Amino acid sequence: MSLASWRSPLARALHRNRALVYTRYLQLATVRADQRPANRTIVFRGFLDGSNQLQFVTDARSAKTEQIDRCAWGEACWYFPKTREQFRLAGELLLVKADYPDSTLQKARQAMWQALSDAARTQFAWAYPGKPQTDKDGFDVAVPDATTPLPHFCLLLLDPQAVDHLELRGDPQNRWLHRYDGSGWSAQAINP
Amino acid sequence: MSLASWRSPLARALHRNRALVYTRYLQLATVRADQRPANRTIVFRGFLDGSNQLQFVTDARSAKTEQIDRCAWGEACWYFPKTREQFRLAGELLLVKADYPDSTLQKARQAMWQALSDAARTQFAWAYPGKPQTDKDGFDVAVPDATTPLPHFCLLLLDPQAVDHLELRGDPQNRWLHRYDGSGWSAQAINP
Repeated sequence: MSLASWRSPLARALHRNRALVYTRYLQLATVRADQRPANRTIVFRGFLDGSNQLQFVTDARSAKTEQIDRCAWGEACWYFPKTREQFRLAGELLLVKADYPDSTLQKARQAMWQALSDAARTQFAWAYPGKPQTDKDGFDVAVPDATTPLPHFCLLLLDPQAVDHLELRGDPQNRWLHRYDGSGWSAQAINP
Repeated sequence: MSLASWRSPLARALHRNRALVYTRYLQLATVRADQRPANRTIVFRGFLDGSNQLQFVTDARSAKTEQIDRCAWGEACWYFPKTREQFRLAGELLLVKADYPDSTLQKARQAMWQALSDAARTQFAWAYPGKPQTDKDGFDVAVPDATTPLPHFCLLLLDPQAVDHLELRGDPQNRWLHRYDGSGWSAQAINP
């Protein structure tokens, strides 16, 4: 595989904004069962080896996994405050759950679990997310084993098909649309 | 009208994060004609007087106005880096275009235009957003008149019906779901 045309500007943005601890936070939009949009902050966890797919983690009990099961398409919006630029990455979402058949992706899921901090792993042992909170007992849990992912731990992949890159700093602003045509990427300057 | 239950925590977040110039930037998700989600950064421009509706500005030529015409529902995701908290505001979207019949909202649209900076107003005179860029001539434009909005200038309102507030700093994290039942707001603690 070759690097997509948006990989180099994205790498540059990540590098130039690295002083901000939240520079790896972005917002992922999905569609709910009632056809309305959902939107939440997620943490970028690098690219899947040898691909242009972004990695995230999620809990199979969360509302977004149900949304992705129904409509496996998302748009991530990533704003970089220091360089004042935005990437909108639209593409297919793939949930690698505990029973996902592909062994390479299962290995990636396991590697991601192992790479998490204890604090991040512990959140997957917390009480059912989004349910009414009855007490805090469901959060007083032991740190899960670092070698074997909990069953509801999922690796989430976003495979972009179109990337809209906007630089607010230009005069006028600069904006490019990167598109995948099934075999390769091309980029075009568009009006901001 | 009375202040919604999420207004006070949101005001506190805005205040505590005020040192960050981009604290008024949030991400708005909408749904495209093909049922896939769209997501982009927008700028919060205060509340409509006497209401719980968030104000934004947009260009009638932008893709999002077409999406909102088709599905007038959005979810805004607002992350506050300093206090490490997130608000997800889901609700109805209302586009106040040049021909919108309500005179109160037309006045609000006009007031918003007047409140913009020259630089912000000038962007509405730029070449058609999202179209392939042929040259930079379409950006070398005069500053529009400050009193009368350009025809494609829109006031965009988000009228939240559910607000999910997450504080990452708690141990465990704190999360509340605020809901509007048609007459008033109530809040419930939910699992993070």
